[in-house]
Amino acid sequence: MGRVWRALLLAASVPAVAGAGELQDDLRARRGRVMEALGPESVLIHRSAPARVYSRDVDYEYRQDSDLLYLTGVDQEGTTLVLLPGNKTKKSILFVSDANPRREHWQGHLLTKQEAQEASGVDEVRLASELDDFLVSLMNGYPFGERLTEYTGEYDAFFEALKADTARLALILGWRPGPKDELPQAYEFAERMRQRVPGLQVRDATRMVWGLRQVKTAYERAALQRSTDVSADAHRAAMRATKPDRFEYEVEAALEKAYLERGAPSWGYPSIVGSGPNATILHYDRSRRQMKAGELLLIDAAAFYQGMTADITRSWPVSGKYSKEQAELWRLVLAAQDAGMKAAVAGNHTTDVEKAAEDVVKAGLLKLGLVTDASSKQHRTWYTHGICHWIGLDVHDVGDYRRPLEPGMAFVIEPGIYIREQALEALEDTPENRAFKEKVRPAALKYRDIGVRVEDSFLLTETGLVRLSARVPRTLEEIEAFMAGRDQ
Amino acid sequence: MGRVWRALLLAASVPAVAGAGELQDDLRARRGRVMEALGPESVLIHRSAPARVYSRDVDYEYRQDSDLLYLTGVDQEGTTLVLLPGNKTKKSILFVSDANPRREHWQGHLLTKQEAQEASGVDEVRLASELDDFLVSLMNGYPFGERLTEYTGEYDAFFEALKADTARLALILGWRPGPKDELPQAYEFAERMRQRVPGLQVRDATRMVWGLRQVKTAYERAALQRSTDVSADAHRAAMRATKPDRFEYEVEAALEKAYLERGAPSWGYPSIVGSGPNATILHYDRSRRQMKAGELLLIDAAAFYQGMTADITRSWPVSGKYSKEQAELWRLVLAAQDAGMKAAVAGNHTTDVEKAAEDVVKAGLLKLGLVTDASSKQHRTWYTHGICHWIGLDVHDVGDYRRPLEPGMAFVIEPGIYIREQALEALEDTPENRAFKEKVRPAALKYRDIGVRVEDSFLLTETGLVRLSARVPRTLEEIEAFMAGRDQ
Repeated sequence: MGRVWRALLLAASVPAVAGAGELQDDLRARRGRVMEALGPESVLIHRSAPARVYSRDVDYEYRQDSDLLYLTGVDQEGTTLVLLPGNKTKKSILFVSDANPRREHWQGHLLTKQEAQEASGVDEVRLASELDDFLVSLMNGYPFGERLTEYTGEYDAFFEALKADTARLALILGWRPGPKDELPQAYEFAERMRQRVPGLQVRDATRMVWGLRQVKTAYERAALQRSTDVSADAHRAAMRATKPDRFEYEVEAALEKAYLERGAPSWGYPSIVGSGPNATILHYDRSRRQMKAGELLLIDAAAFYQGMTADITRSWPVSGKYSKEQAELWRLVLAAQDAGMKAAVAGNHTTDVEKAAEDVVKAGLLKLGLVTDASSKQHRTWYTHGICHWIGLDVHDVGDYRRPLEPGMAFVIEPGIYIREQALEALEDTPENRAFKEKVRPAALKYRDIGVRVEDSFLLTETGLVRLSARVPRTLEEIEAFMAGRDQ
Repeated sequence: MGRVWRALLLAASVPAVAGAGELQDDLRARRGRVMEALGPESVLIHRSAPARVYSRDVDYEYRQDSDLLYLTGVDQEGTTLVLLPGNKTKKSILFVSDANPRREHWQGHLLTKQEAQEASGVDEVRLASELDDFLVSLMNGYPFGERLTEYTGEYDAFFEALKADTARLALILGWRPGPKDELPQAYEFAERMRQRVPGLQVRDATRMVWGLRQVKTAYERAALQRSTDVSADAHRAAMRATKPDRFEYEVEAALEKAYLERGAPSWGYPSIVGSGPNATILHYDRSRRQMKAGELLLIDAAAFYQGMTADITRSWPVSGKYSKEQAELWRLVLAAQDAGMKAAVAGNHTTDVEKAAEDVVKAGLLKLGLVTDASSKQHRTWYTHGICHWIGLDVHDVGDYRRPLEPGMAFVIEPGIYIREQALEALEDTPENRAFKEKVRPAALKYRDIGVRVEDSFLLTETGLVRLSARVPRTLEEIEAFMAGRDQ
C-alpha cells in the first residue's frame, strides 16, 4: 500500500525526475497484469525492434519497439522477453546481447546481465546466444541449463500444458498487415513454431497488451507530464525564435535544440513547421520556406522523452499579432477545443468529444460564411481530420476508441481548420457542390491559405481532465503577450 | 567549354549557393556516362528508397537512395528512373507519384511532372501508376502510350535486342547480401523479370555506377565544400557550447541546431559526442554523460547538406586546456594525419596513406611507452581502425580502394588512439602478450581513458590535396585559442 500511495503522490506532484525504483516496480506490475491475462499454460515471446537503415552502412538512431519498452524498459537492440506465467519463480526472462569487447569498442557499452536485471526488474537475465537452445528445451519439456537431478519443477505448468496440447504461444503481433503486405518477422516466427510444435496454439496478445497501455499507470502519468513539459518548453523556444523573414528551418532548429538540451534523445514524430500556405498541409515536414510578416506559423511537435510522447500544436502570428481573419479562425478552433474538453468526461467516448467540437465548428463556419448549411457535411471541406487520438509511448498511441473514457487515459483534442482553394476545386462536380462553391468562394478568398490547429495533450484523472500542455500559451491574448515579450 | 569553365570556377570559389542550372547539367552528364557504359541494348531501372518505420504509424524522416539521388536529384518517395540508352530522344524517363489532393493535404506537395522534369532534367516524366504497364509494353516490344501509326522508332534499339535475345536489364543492386540475409526488393524484381522475359540478361551495374560516384564532378566538389562548411560551423558551435559539468547532449543540441539553422535537413550520420571514457567508444551515440573539467570531449559529426556528407572529428579539452598526457596523444594523431596527407597524392593508394600514418603512430606510441616493439602489431591495441574512407553522398561513400588516387576523389584521414584498459585485458593470453601487458601497464594507466581522433574531409584536386574542413581549429594551439575566446 505504501508504494502505491507514494506513486499516486508522485503523479500528483509531478516531480522533475522520479527515482528509478518506481519504474522497475511499475514494469513488474505491467508484466504481472499481462501474465494474469495469459494464464499459466502460455509462453509470451516478444523481440526488440530491428535497426533501420538510413543509407548504406549508417542506421537511423535506434527506436525500441514500444511494447518491449512497455514491458521491460530496455532500449537495446537484440533483446527478447520471455514470459512464463506458470513458472514458479522465473516468470520473466530477458535475453540480452552477449558482451563483446570488440563490438562495444565500436558501438558502446552493452548492458551486462546485472544491469539488464536492474533496469527491467525481470526474474532472470540470459544471453541472446542462448535463446534458440532455450526454446528448443522449453518446447521439448526439458528445463534449460539445469541438471535434472537438481530440477525443482520450475517449468512444470507449461510442460504439462504441452503434454495436454493446451499450451499457448502468445505473440504481440501488432497492427495486422494487409493481404499484399510483407509478413512481419513475428508472423514467420509463429509459423515456424507451429510447424515444429504441433498442438501449440498461437494467440495474438496485441489487443490485451494494448488495452493495458491504454490506461496509464501512476508512473506513466508522471512521465507523460515530464515529457509534455519538455515539449512545451520547446514550443516556447520556437515562439521566441519566430521572426519575419526567417526560414522555417531556423525555428525548427530552436525547437529541436530545446528537446536535445533537456535530454530528450529525439522527436516523437517529425516536426511540422509550416508557415503561410504550408500551415494547411497537415504533415508538412520540409521546413524550407521563408516566413513573412502577416502570416501564421503552425507548429505541431513533441519530444520522445522518458518513454513518452506528447502532442502539441499552435498557430501563432509570425510578426506577433493576429490579423482579423486569423483571429476569427483561431478563436473558432479554441472554442471547438473547449467544447471537446467539456465532453471529455469518464463514461463518454472520444466520439462524444469529436461531436461536441464539430458542432461548434459547424456553427462557427456558418457565421464566417465558409459553409451555407450547418447540418450538412460541408464543413468537412475545411475541417478535414479527426481530433482525438491516444498518446503515450507512441504519439498515436494504441487503444480502443470503442472503450469509454476512464481515469488514466491520455489523449489529444486537436481541432483544425484549413482554408485551401484546392479543397473547393477538388469537390465532386454536383449541382449542390456548384451552389456551395459559388456561395462560399468570397469567404474562402478572404481566409485563403490560413491554417489553424490547436492541440493539447490531456490526461483524464480521477478528479477530471488535466491539460498537460498548459504551459504553452494558447489564447489569442496569451500568445500575443508572449510574442510581445519574446525579445526581453 | 564555357559551361565547364564556369563549373570549375565554381569549385574554386566555393560559392554559398550554386545556380540550379549547374546541378541539372551535372545530372544529365552523370546519366550520360552511365548510359554510355550500359550501351544501347540495355534498360536500367532504379527505384527510390522505401520509407522506414520509426514506431507504429510514424516514419523516420525520409532519406532517398543515394544512387537515385546521384542520377536524378529527386528526393521524393515512389520515384523510379528508367534509362534506355538506345532510345532516340527519350533516353531518361522518370516515374513520379501521381498527384493526389487528399494525400497532398496530409503529406505535402508532390512534384508535378513539370517540376520533376525541371529538377532532374530527364527527357520525359510519367506517373508512377503507369510504370507497370510501361514495362509490360517495353518487354513485349510495343511502344507505350503511342499509336503505332505515329510511332517513329523511339525504342527500336531495345526492341531489336529483345528479339535477338541480347537485351539486358541493368539494376543497381548495391552491397551484396550474405547467404542468410533477406533478399532486397531489387533482387526479387530481377527474378520476376527473368521469369517473365526469358533471354533477358540481368546485369548488376553497381560497380560501374559506384566507380563514377568515386570521382566527384565539379558540381559535386563545390557541393561537398558547402556541406563541409556547414559541418565545420557546427563543430565551432559545439566547441563554444562545451563547459565543465554540462551534459554531452547539451553540446549535441548546439551542434545539431547549427545544421538545422543553416538549412541542412539532417545529420549525415548520428552525432558522436563522447566525453572522458566515452571518447574511447568509436560510435558512442548516447550523449548521456556529464562532462568534467580535465576531460576531453570527442565529437565526430557532420550534416547531410545539398546531397553531400562530410566527416569531421576533433577531441578538445572540456575546460579549454589539454593536460600533458592529452596533448601528447593529440599531437601524435596530428602528426599521423600530416604523414597521411603527404602520402595522399595522385597515383598512390589509400593504403599508402594508411601506412604512412601508421608508421608515425607506431614510433610515437613507442616513445610514450604504450608499445615495446614498433615493428610488431602491438599498436593495434590502441590504434583500432582504418583511417581512410571515401565521402560524398554517403559518409562512407562508395568506391574501390584498389583504384589509385586521382583528382576528384574525396576521402577522410582519421587517425585515432584509444587507451582502454579492457583492450589490454582482452588480449589473448600468450607469453608475448603477458610480457607486453606488464611492460606497458604503467603507460596505459597514465593515459587511461583518453580517446583522441582527428578527422578531416579532403578533396584531391589537380593541384593537390585540399583540406575541406580547414575552418575547424585543429592544432593544440588553434583549439586552445578558440576555446579561450569562446565566451567573448
